[in-house]
Amino acid sequence: MAKVLVVAGSKSDETFVKQALDLFDEWNIDYNFEVMSAHRDLEKLTVYIKNLDDDYKVIIAVAGLAAALPGVIASLSSLPVIGVPNDVGPLKGVDALLSMVQMPKGVPVATMGIGNHGMKNAAYFTKRLLKEGK
Amino acid sequence: MAKVLVVAGSKSDETFVKQALDLFDEWNIDYNFEVMSAHRDLEKLTVYIKNLDDDYKVIIAVAGLAAALPGVIASLSSLPVIGVPNDVGPLKGVDALLSMVQMPKGVPVATMGIGNHGMKNAAYFTKRLLKEGK
Amino acid sequence: MAKVLVVAGSKSDETFVKQALDLFDEWNIDYNFEVMSAHRDLEKLTVYIKNLDDDYKVIIAVAGLAAALPGVIASLSSLPVIGVPNDVGPLKGVDALLSMVQMPKGVPVATMGIGNHGMKNAAYFTKRLLKEGK
Amino acid sequence: MAKVLVVAGSKSDETFVKQALDLFDEWNIDYNFEVMSAHRDLEKLTVYIKNLDDDYKVIIAVAGLAAALPGVIASLSSLPVIGVPNDVGPLKGVDALLSMVQMPKGVPVATMGIGNHGMKNAAYFTKRLLKEGK
Amino acid sequence: MAKVLVVAGSKSDETFVKQALDLFDEWNIDYNFEVMSAHRDLEKLTVYIKNLDDDYKVIIAVAGLAAALPGVIASLSSLPVIGVPNDVGPLKGVDALLSMVQMPKGVPVATMGIGNHGMKNAAYFTKRLLKEGK
Amino acid sequence: MAKVLVVAGSKSDETFVKQALDLFDEWNIDYNFEVMSAHRDLEKLTVYIKNLDDDYKVIIAVAGLAAALPGVIASLSSLPVIGVPNDVGPLKGVDALLSMVQMPKGVPVATMGIGNHGMKNAAYFTKRLLKEGK
Amino acid sequence: MAKVLVVAGSKSDETFVKQALDLFDEWNIDYNFEVMSAHRDLEKLTVYIKNLDDDYKVIIAVAGLAAALPGVIASLSSLPVIGVPNDVGPLKGVDALLSMVQMPKGVPVATMGIGNHGMKNAAYFTKRLLKEGK
Amino acid sequence: MAKVLVVAGSKSDETFVKQALDLFDEWNIDYNFEVMSAHRDLEKLTVYIKNLDDDYKVIIAVAGLAAALPGVIASLSSLPVIGVPNDVGPLKGVDALLSMVQMPKGVPVATMGIGNHGMKNAAYFTKRLLKEGK
Repeated sequence: MAKVLVVAGSKSDETFVKQALDLFDEWNIDYNFEVMSAHRDLEKLTVYIKNLDDDYKVIIAVAGLAAALPGVIASLSSLPVIGVPNDVGPLKGVDALLSMVQMPKGVPVATMGIGNHGMKNAAYFTKRLLKEGK
Repeated sequence: MAKVLVVAGSKSDETFVKQALDLFDEWNIDYNFEVMSAHRDLEKLTVYIKNLDDDYKVIIAVAGLAAALPGVIASLSSLPVIGVPNDVGPLKGVDALLSMVQMPKGVPVATMGIGNHGMKNAAYFTKRLLKEGK
Repeated sequence: MAKVLVVAGSKSDETFVKQALDLFDEWNIDYNFEVMSAHRDLEKLTVYIKNLDDDYKVIIAVAGLAAALPGVIASLSSLPVIGVPNDVGPLKGVDALLSMVQMPKGVPVATMGIGNHGMKNAAYFTKRLLKEGK
Repeated sequence: MAKVLVVAGSKSDETFVKQALDLFDEWNIDYNFEVMSAHRDLEKLTVYIKNLDDDYKVIIAVAGLAAALPGVIASLSSLPVIGVPNDVGPLKGVDALLSMVQMPKGVPVATMGIGNHGMKNAAYFTKRLLKEGK
Repeated sequence: MAKVLVVAGSKSDETFVKQALDLFDEWNIDYNFEVMSAHRDLEKLTVYIKNLDDDYKVIIAVAGLAAALPGVIASLSSLPVIGVPNDVGPLKGVDALLSMVQMPKGVPVATMGIGNHGMKNAAYFTKRLLKEGK
Repeated sequence: MAKVLVVAGSKSDETFVKQALDLFDEWNIDYNFEVMSAHRDLEKLTVYIKNLDDDYKVIIAVAGLAAALPGVIASLSSLPVIGVPNDVGPLKGVDALLSMVQMPKGVPVATMGIGNHGMKNAAYFTKRLLKEGK
Repeated sequence: MAKVLVVAGSKSDETFVKQALDLFDEWNIDYNFEVMSAHRDLEKLTVYIKNLDDDYKVIIAVAGLAAALPGVIASLSSLPVIGVPNDVGPLKGVDALLSMVQMPKGVPVATMGIGNHGMKNAAYFTKRLLKEGK
Repeated sequence: MAKVLVVAGSKSDETFVKQALDLFDEWNIDYNFEVMSAHRDLEKLTVYIKNLDDDYKVIIAVAGLAAALPGVIASLSSLPVIGVPNDVGPLKGVDALLSMVQMPKGVPVATMGIGNHGMKNAAYFTKRLLKEGK
């Protein structure tokens, strides 16, 4: 059963996300990958996150621009949520970084760097996290 | 019946929001004011917005930091949504501005300026909008 | 009769603007598209905006760099004005965003995101706005 | 007869502007000081600038936030226009700087620094300019 | 035995860090709090982190300015490392944010927001993380 | 005799500067164009500027990066100095803009926009300036 | 004989500079402190730097805003030049940082951080530098 | 014996670094060039720096992104350390610049400009530094 859920806000994030999925494959860590937008699929996303299988231990949320996805997921789930800002658009991901890292208290998003390094580090952080816990 | 819904993401935004409410009072425009956070009350917010009275013509959403509120409301409602970035926190509202203006296509947020001028302009824009339409 | 006026500050914005016009065509929303600069055609623009046909319900103003166009139109008309910052020039539209969103109180510009998403969202916001009103 | 016209976008800029006026007084340079907003008084401003006395040699335009004033004046007059960004609002004048310096070709605004140094330098630059010419 | 190690880069961060420690106290989560700088105590820090008790499940690293502490700890330990940028200095924590979030691939730092909200969210994220794992 | 002196900080600015020179040619305004760096040729530049022909009415100074040239010339000459930030280097001219616009009081640099529009506007502003004066 | 020359661009930098001078006093390192502006005293500065006593081993240059001082000194002297951006003005020293660090090749300025930490580090770096060399 | 140690954080910085090495070759200045990451090789780096040959007079540290390398080396060595921010990644080296220049007091990094000019200036500054000293 998959322990990691990876959600991207847009179909166009798939190649970007694959950098992390390839690492999970290499490490034999099971994951599910879904494309759901906080802005275009909010109700579907709500139902999906509220009914997640208990096996999941961590959620990675990837988005660009006004990147609400990680914060919205963190508000719906009690799992640790990792946010990755994609470096798309004229602001090259600065908008996405601020949209996910500057969360109000109580709803944390563990934010990785902008772009490729950040996407890979979401996998590396997940690996660390899966080794620890209660 | 109120035509304008004003939603703020935090109790602490109330004094800030009052600048717009005072203008509505002065202009005899009915409004409802609610405090609901996209991050702390997402499910309650979803139900609330999905069941809005048909009299509402426009929604003003006010938030600071990673300001997901306007975008989330715009994804739940087909009404015009106006976003106001509050100039709180160490980045003085630059984070909030980018979090609400940089929306992906299909889910528009009509964003006002950062801080007091923007809050008042949300009222001024609403007044213009209520005069027009079908 | 056209309900939407789209004004761009420069001939070179035409391809950019077309992204919104195509949506209006698809939705059968009538529009007029004009190229007039706040800086090069101010008096002509003033006369044009002051004598707009009463059928217009909303104005979309598109500009790059020191993007005064949306604010100037908002000062000449009592219609709702939507501003779109084009991502041209070395600052990639950050200058245009700040030049239109940071309006003083009383003259609101409903600002969309920088670049293509923002241009399309001007159309999406207009569609919402045309359904509502008095 | 005054050779220098100083225009500020808001009553609240008066103390700020006085820093330059005091220098003009010290140097016995005649000036007129007017408060007119590009956004709130555009038509009055247009008439005023189009009918300026021929004695004027230079115009100083002071504004904060989305500071359209210098550019608008530069589009209405063929005189040299000096822009001064006031350091007001949450962005401390960065918005005003970009709104006046990033002018499209053909409508130049000679921009001074943000805040007090810039305001005084508008006077110093005017002094240099009045000594030169045809 | 403590499961959470909190390290701050400077004595002056103590009041700031206390916001998270108070939450741990409230939730009965054991922690150790140390002040060690990546720049002033690197060798001591190296020995300390390399010899951490096996009970530790997560490390929170707090720093301002050129905030190397979280990244350095992440390079010395295989535990999940959470970084918190303190909003000190003339850049109000933007320097600290970029210094910890923009990590190269392989050495992830889970970065929280700048300032008070981020400091508290480090505790909230830790609580989520301690519930999950292998 | 030439009334306009154009100085660029680097040989590599020549194509960029030509945009203004072509306008001067078109308008029959005489100019001299020199390449001298504030940082590599300071003493030569000092002698050159201190011994300028009295016919000169205005100096245009073009530079990128840490663009000290316009300010240095303004400190050596009592002529009006126009600064143009070239959009070179990783910061795309933001460094050059701030290096020339943020002058201390008493030594004004009339700054144009970053890049091509600014370069052309230096010519347009010069044309306005040459018509006015004592 | 003094080995360290400290130059500040303005009288108002004195308290700021004293943070480094106190360290030199504590370490028994001789220094001279002068106030000379690259913009207001360029010729005096040129003569002064060109005729420096051979005992000097390093120059510290402190300035705010469009901080040309360190670069100008580096162009006049073959000594190592350390630049310190003072955090004055509305941009809090970001302008000064970029004005001194972004030097063209061949004229290096060794730049310290913005504000108090940077000012003290100019002393610490000098101490390191004086121990090394030919 | 080499007097200059050049350390880059990543294999991919080699071409970038070569711009300085070529200058050293031209000037017959001996150097050693090593690739060691503050984040991936911290313990190896620590041993290496703590056991440097006494002939070394200066260290140049090159890195991009969250560029901890120069600061970490400055904390391990009492030699003067020069930092060069590589203009890689979506932020074009702004992250690297802030990560190395904003050092806390006591651990100075002499920072050069972002990218090619900065890399070459590290060599030029080294040349100046090697001529001076005790």
